[in-house]
Amino acid sequence: MAAPTPSAPSAATYGIGARIALHPMTDRYVDIITTALAATPRPPELELTTSPVSTFVGGPDAAVVRYCADLVAAAAHRADGAHLAAQVLLSRGCPGEVTCTLRHGPWVDGEAVAVPDAGVRAWAEWSLYPLLDGQGGGAHMTPIMDAIATARASGLFHSSDHFVTRLAGDVGAILALVATAWLRTGAGVQHVVTHLSLSINSPTQGV
Amino acid sequence: MAAPTPSAPSAATYGIGARIALHPMTDRYVDIITTALAATPRPPELELTTSPVSTFVGGPDAAVVRYCADLVAAAAHRADGAHLAAQVLLSRGCPGEVTCTLRHGPWVDGEAVAVPDAGVRAWAEWSLYPLLDGQGGGAHMTPIMDAIATARASGLFHSSDHFVTRLAGDVGAILALVATAWLRTGAGVQHVVTHLSLSINSPTQGV
Repeated sequence: MAAPTPSAPSAATYGIGARIALHPMTDRYVDIITTALAATPRPPELELTTSPVSTFVGGPDAAVVRYCADLVAAAAHRADGAHLAAQVLLSRGCPGEVTCTLRHGPWVDGEAVAVPDAGVRAWAEWSLYPLLDGQGGGAHMTPIMDAIATARASGLFHSSDHFVTRLAGDVGAILALVATAWLRTGAGVQHVVTHLSLSINSPTQGV
Repeated sequence: MAAPTPSAPSAATYGIGARIALHPMTDRYVDIITTALAATPRPPELELTTSPVSTFVGGPDAAVVRYCADLVAAAAHRADGAHLAAQVLLSRGCPGEVTCTLRHGPWVDGEAVAVPDAGVRAWAEWSLYPLLDGQGGGAHMTPIMDAIATARASGLFHSSDHFVTRLAGDVGAILALVATAWLRTGAGVQHVVTHLSLSINSPTQGV
């Protein structure tokens, strides 16, 4: 008798989502954050929960990433030249809080994450963590080096620095690059996390 | 003939360091950041380099972490009640930008990271990434679960949430907990990264 076929994963069962935080460096920060949250379209397939530190956005990869890009862009427009930082964590493949047990191996639902240009330029520092549980060990740097090669070819690459790749460009293009590398790494590695730190309207160094 | 004994690792050759960013949510943010940087003691063994997004702090684990705690505390005091976020990335075991080739296996120089209380309370969201290159694969969640058990026993644990452990307490105690878990994971895993997002003086939810 054949083993029962496990049901196909979904974004929720696969633990796909983001944590995002906006940090406007102005006395108007509450207005900027609340206005951006109210102005950003929220598709029904997304789950949003806010903590004292950040907001969880759960759902399909593309919708999660598009929401993050739209939210940062809305905050940047409301900031109207004020300095704004934003932190984005994307995670896939670890559905529990402390365990990543899945009946499937690596799974992705798409080839790339498309994000339109946001019309907002940023500096960014980016890191990618392929967590190779059950993949036979070794070579966790291979997908990282592949991702950096993609970044170098994208026109967004600025420099390598300790622990991060520095990018500069449109917020939407940066999120598309980062999220596509995260998704593609997920084709071979179940649990993949990436962190992106964005800096907009920095007073000291233009971009 | 015996193989030559490789020279002992150092913090620099082992790639130990932090990236830290301060985000004071007030019009006074430049003053708060520059005052905190000027007021924080900088031991000669630390290397500091500032980028448009964050500051790199390289050196021995304990000195790096103590510097980060002191810098956040100095910023919090200067903020004088204004909302302040801080991002801390700690990394060890990957000395290059894109490669982690070392002649040694896992190496730590100490049992724990001691940080005095800072007198500043914070919410925090914490994640730990053991990157198990060459460790035989599997079980990357074991050190994460060990770290969460340590957090639960510390009195700083608030809750588990998607992708992060939420902590609440003194900034120094939080950094000691996080850095010690990072160090201890490093005893068995060469390349270990941890991310900590701190929120101080949040107007919406007290801590």
